[in-house]
Amino acid sequence: LRTLKLILEYNGSRYHGWQRQKNGTSIQAIVEQAFVTMCRHQIHVIGAGRTDAGVHAMGQVAHARVDVNIPDENFRLGLNSLLPDDIVIRRVETVGDDFHARFSATGKVYRYKILNRKEPSALEYPFSWHVPQPLDLEPISQALAFLEGTHDFSSFKGPKSKTDTAVRKLSKATVIRDGDFVVFEFEGDGFLRHMVRIIVGTAVEVGLHKLTVEDFQTILESKNRKKSGPTAPPQGLILVRVKYD
Amino acid sequence: LRTLKLILEYNGSRYHGWQRQKNGTSIQAIVEQAFVTMCRHQIHVIGAGRTDAGVHAMGQVAHARVDVNIPDENFRLGLNSLLPDDIVIRRVETVGDDFHARFSATGKVYRYKILNRKEPSALEYPFSWHVPQPLDLEPISQALAFLEGTHDFSSFKGPKSKTDTAVRKLSKATVIRDGDFVVFEFEGDGFLRHMVRIIVGTAVEVGLHKLTVEDFQTILESKNRKKSGPTAPPQGLILVRVKYD
Repeated sequence: LRTLKLILEYNGSRYHGWQRQKNGTSIQAIVEQAFVTMCRHQIHVIGAGRTDAGVHAMGQVAHARVDVNIPDENFRLGLNSLLPDDIVIRRVETVGDDFHARFSATGKVYRYKILNRKEPSALEYPFSWHVPQPLDLEPISQALAFLEGTHDFSSFKGPKSKTDTAVRKLSKATVIRDGDFVVFEFEGDGFLRHMVRIIVGTAVEVGLHKLTVEDFQTILESKNRKKSGPTAPPQGLILVRVKYD
Repeated sequence: LRTLKLILEYNGSRYHGWQRQKNGTSIQAIVEQAFVTMCRHQIHVIGAGRTDAGVHAMGQVAHARVDVNIPDENFRLGLNSLLPDDIVIRRVETVGDDFHARFSATGKVYRYKILNRKEPSALEYPFSWHVPQPLDLEPISQALAFLEGTHDFSSFKGPKSKTDTAVRKLSKATVIRDGDFVVFEFEGDGFLRHMVRIIVGTAVEVGLHKLTVEDFQTILESKNRKKSGPTAPPQGLILVRVKYD
């Protein structure tokens, strides 16, 4: 038995998220199926994070323990030939048996993309949230600065989040304008369920001047999900990278 | 009766090209259908160029003559509410009755995107041609330089091209590397059927050192489609802009 570390890219549009579930097709299930075809034994593929339905990944990481003697690069080619076009294994690497995609992870980077122009986009609608009203990025930047550091993020925690504590450390929370797009980037040691999407949904209220920067700070300190804004839609979110020591 | 100029963006993946045809759904037919719903009379929507099946547009231009009194901006909103997500009207403008999307056009800009890395992309496969072998851009740039100016482009003319002459003027033919992508840009007074795709297909042979820069020049001068390379696949191509005086 050897442990493989995988780096995956996927378009989440057609899937019910990363995590295997009763109803709907998960990315995990599709990848496990490809492994079973190659290995001819049952395989569990463990992801670093559970991306929601419609959320994308450029650098999801997963691990699997396999009992076959196929070289890493052939494994990658074999898996990709079995996978649909919207799921790609970017890398396969044999690692030490103590590697665990989730527990060994020390950080994650997420990006959230808003299309901020009057008209929707025929090319970008599966990869962005369309906000037609002009967003003021100056107060958004100020609001995001409050998030950097270690905080209790209960105000930005989705329902059914099963973690004991909502304390997380964010090392980066930024926003930039890139043509018609407004792009958020978040880096942290871990993220709660829907955390990025609720932060973005609340930040957009600030960018529309429905909330002030002070309101945003008060919301963070309230540790109360009822105070924060709506959950931004999933298709703007992408898991960019998972970090390991 | 008034004449409307439209600027359209579309994802060509699901369509059999711009032009209405017997088999398969065209973008033109879908847009005309939306017009008929709004105007309640038969409408002909004339595009500046006939993009092939799978080819995209950021800035296709079309015109239509309508007999209703709806303001331009309401027209745009109404059409977009009737169109599928992968076809968007970016702009509607009432213009003089002598405006013709095709005959008034003085130039077009096309972009062609290659994903030039070993692994395919789960996010970009509908918008790029995957070439896994490293491309050498230096000879490609030199080859493209031969295309700038006025030439007979018979060597880069697809079948069933119905034009009398293959003489066209290219004011720009460039290539750059952008991360994992290789991006071509072409600007000219007009383009033959498949012209950009055959140029890119041939340029890739140069970038793989299967053809020399001199071979490329000889191919252009031969005015013979049999000498040039394969036609690059449609999904890497996008009509960026149509120019008018």
